[in-house]
Amino acid sequence: MSNDMQRRGLMLVLSSPSGAGKTTLSRRLLESDAAVAMSVSATTRRPRQGEVEGRDYFFVSPDSFTGMVQANAFLEHALVFGNHYGTPKEPVTLALAKGQDVLFDIDWQGTQQLRQQAGDDLVSIFVLPPSHAELERRLRARAQDSDDVVAARMARANNEISHWAEYDYVVINDDLDATLAKIKIILAAERMKRGRQTGITAFVGQLTR
Amino acid sequence: MSNDMQRRGLMLVLSSPSGAGKTTLSRRLLESDAAVAMSVSATTRRPRQGEVEGRDYFFVSPDSFTGMVQANAFLEHALVFGNHYGTPKEPVTLALAKGQDVLFDIDWQGTQQLRQQAGDDLVSIFVLPPSHAELERRLRARAQDSDDVVAARMARANNEISHWAEYDYVVINDDLDATLAKIKIILAAERMKRGRQTGITAFVGQLTR
Repeated sequence: MSNDMQRRGLMLVLSSPSGAGKTTLSRRLLESDAAVAMSVSATTRRPRQGEVEGRDYFFVSPDSFTGMVQANAFLEHALVFGNHYGTPKEPVTLALAKGQDVLFDIDWQGTQQLRQQAGDDLVSIFVLPPSHAELERRLRARAQDSDDVVAARMARANNEISHWAEYDYVVINDDLDATLAKIKIILAAERMKRGRQTGITAFVGQLTR
Repeated sequence: MSNDMQRRGLMLVLSSPSGAGKTTLSRRLLESDAAVAMSVSATTRRPRQGEVEGRDYFFVSPDSFTGMVQANAFLEHALVFGNHYGTPKEPVTLALAKGQDVLFDIDWQGTQQLRQQAGDDLVSIFVLPPSHAELERRLRARAQDSDDVVAARMARANNEISHWAEYDYVVINDDLDATLAKIKIILAAERMKRGRQTGITAFVGQLTR
């Protein structure tokens, strides 16, 4: 029998300032590991062209959203530029019980809320850019932006980075392939944590019969 | 800059019933990873042929041992068949501060003592045999032993196994190479834990300057 026995899934949070490569890392992780699924948020904003209900978002009315908040049906939620976003609890609960891992693309504020609810299910990784110069280069490279716009982005990035010490793991993204490999190593190790190995109790019963 | 920055070492405990492959796994881990060193115990028993002071054991007098116990100079200690064995604290403390990982070959009782003193420095892995039949085969294969002797060994093995749930990770050793790879994955992930990344604070200061 191998360690691929019954296990509980985990909640994986990747946080980083924008420009640290998080979006690409998330996409590549999802492509390469079928046991990881992206968390789908509920939102009150209207669908954009090409967005699919249940894949990109669950699109809900403001009243429905408020009802879900009152029913404590979100793991975390936030108001961003006048629109509500939240992570519905039920799909995550079902996924974890089936041994499916769930990936979250949320900032430090969402992670703080999630941490309250997730307990040992949460594995949080903070991805840092390799240097100040590289961070500035990546923030600038997004478009032909003015220095003011870049400075505002840098301030937001610095604010996000200031929360690195709240995370379980810290990874410096100096190379995308190497960083993806590190995230996969963390995931592989966390899956071997005793508390997630829900099949072990029965297995040990067999061993010591 | 890479993640190979300054870090604090960790204390790695591999525990298992005899016959689960722990000794071979420890030797191969030490051979293949220069950042891991074996913890050297102090003992009151006399050196055997070929044993080297400071490599195999620190050989001390019963009075010295008692003095060290009274000075709280051991991370853990035990009396086994009339001889005292203990892990001196100071070499481990120095090693961890230098970023050296220290491997311990101790049973569940030693691990319980270590856990009291080590806090977050401790990473504990329980190695299980792949099946009851295989465990019995390995215990029997040690020599031409009577059923009684094998039964006594099996009872000790079952006692050790009964403590699996006190460990951070559980690994089933159905294949030595695969199990060694799993232990290395756990080690690699634990080295990326935020609390061990002692160089990160200064690095983040640079990033957000």
